[in-house]
Amino acid sequence: MSVSIGFVGFGEAGSHIAQGLTGQGVSGITAYDLHANTPGRGEKIRERAAWAGVELVAAPSELAQRAQVILSVVTANAAEEAAAQNAPFLTPDHLYADLNSVSPGTKQRIQGIIESAGASFVEVAVMAPVPPYLHQVPMLLNGTSAPRFSEQLSPFGMKFQVIDDQPGVAAATKMCRSVIVKGIESLVMESMLASTYYGADERVWASLNETFPGMDWKKLADYVVGRVAVHGERRAREMEEVAATLEEAHVDPEMTRAIVRRMDWSVEQGMRAQWGIEGPKSYAEVADFVREQMIAKR
Amino acid sequence: MSVSIGFVGFGEAGSHIAQGLTGQGVSGITAYDLHANTPGRGEKIRERAAWAGVELVAAPSELAQRAQVILSVVTANAAEEAAAQNAPFLTPDHLYADLNSVSPGTKQRIQGIIESAGASFVEVAVMAPVPPYLHQVPMLLNGTSAPRFSEQLSPFGMKFQVIDDQPGVAAATKMCRSVIVKGIESLVMESMLASTYYGADERVWASLNETFPGMDWKKLADYVVGRVAVHGERRAREMEEVAATLEEAHVDPEMTRAIVRRMDWSVEQGMRAQWGIEGPKSYAEVADFVREQMIAKR
Repeated sequence: MSVSIGFVGFGEAGSHIAQGLTGQGVSGITAYDLHANTPGRGEKIRERAAWAGVELVAAPSELAQRAQVILSVVTANAAEEAAAQNAPFLTPDHLYADLNSVSPGTKQRIQGIIESAGASFVEVAVMAPVPPYLHQVPMLLNGTSAPRFSEQLSPFGMKFQVIDDQPGVAAATKMCRSVIVKGIESLVMESMLASTYYGADERVWASLNETFPGMDWKKLADYVVGRVAVHGERRAREMEEVAATLEEAHVDPEMTRAIVRRMDWSVEQGMRAQWGIEGPKSYAEVADFVREQMIAKR
Repeated sequence: MSVSIGFVGFGEAGSHIAQGLTGQGVSGITAYDLHANTPGRGEKIRERAAWAGVELVAAPSELAQRAQVILSVVTANAAEEAAAQNAPFLTPDHLYADLNSVSPGTKQRIQGIIESAGASFVEVAVMAPVPPYLHQVPMLLNGTSAPRFSEQLSPFGMKFQVIDDQPGVAAATKMCRSVIVKGIESLVMESMLASTYYGADERVWASLNETFPGMDWKKLADYVVGRVAVHGERRAREMEEVAATLEEAHVDPEMTRAIVRRMDWSVEQGMRAQWGIEGPKSYAEVADFVREQMIAKR
């Protein structure tokens, strides 16, 4: 069975999925990136294409000619525009999957654009960060074309959960889940900063372990504080999309906006530069670093 | 062994602890409440005293004469003033325990006031809501006089964990724990309001159950949304004290302030009046109610 795969956008997510597929023996993968010839950014994109064994094409029209299954992996704010740029060249043979972290409303508008062009649309919610998993990152697929998309790409080891629900439900699941997952990260960061100041951190984790049996809060704190230190920026931007999702549902995103601010704060502290991609080994390192920064600023 | 117990303040917490102790055969309990003769409030206080088998006294001086172990259970913002009003009448024989939900800094100031008067101080953090547990509500005791306090009251079934740590650590433990416990409640409320709108709630819980094995998120959601619906006001005020605790530790309480707003919002929705003290049976009831309210307001 042969499938021609094309990417719209070739940043971190797209290049890692493509590299994983190439490693599974998939050949002839193409990609179109608006910024392939932008000085600086373009070089990075061309490096990624070489690394992933992917051919960059010059225009959406060429992408549509070369690829039958198209995966949109741009930035959240460019997802709708990307659909609009590619739609004119799509045919009923095309499967267009939007993998971007956008609100259910945006997913539905993209679906409208793609289906108006006569092509098939697949709503995709990427449920974990791509890089460690490459093409095997878990994805939630939604819509009538989801089974066909799954049949074509599952043979290469991609991990899909296929649902057939209202348009936007996959995106909503991801976004509402993120309120809680990224929210707990932010709560642990905020609580830890204060509990370490008072020397009460061990007692707090012990008390929480009693309230939530089956959780190891100290271990969780080390892990999530490390993740926030390294990936605060990505989390802040994702949570802005989550806030939009809540507003579409007429819910005031009080907690979600606070998560954005907590994440942005960790970025401003310069944690990424302090530890690099490896991140800190424990929350205690982060507590010490934040306090040293504070004293230095006085 | 005989112990004379007195309460400073006789609201919900104090009267429920006293009632539990009376039930254990403790006699001669006294209480002083500043508002015992305030029209309206006073009647309620006198009713509570009769219910709990407690004698109200007219002044702090009388309380100090009648009781050797004094428990302060006022409102958070009155805790320091209560200590100052009672301190002049205390002797080295007195044990003064502050049970109020105040910041570690406030606990330390109260300790200073009591110890300057020559009496012994016990820092107490009440770790659960009093009413269902009465005198058996779990308490974290801190300080050099904590073992003596525990010896005197444990025989009546009171539940203490005794630590001997820096002043304020018991309060800090409670407060930093609340960031996470009340924070999760607020996250679940916010996420649930959106996920039910999109019809994605069951999928969100299923996904969270995979991420946090050992947790049942749907069950947790029913429980915590119900608690927030009934006790949002109490939680909002407690979280204001938590915010003060974080600020004392030079931590910007971004998440904590958002929790206050989420709790206040649930109060404004009129959830308490809708369901009474029993509360709603499921989060779905709350989601429906909030949406009906919103439609009604348009």
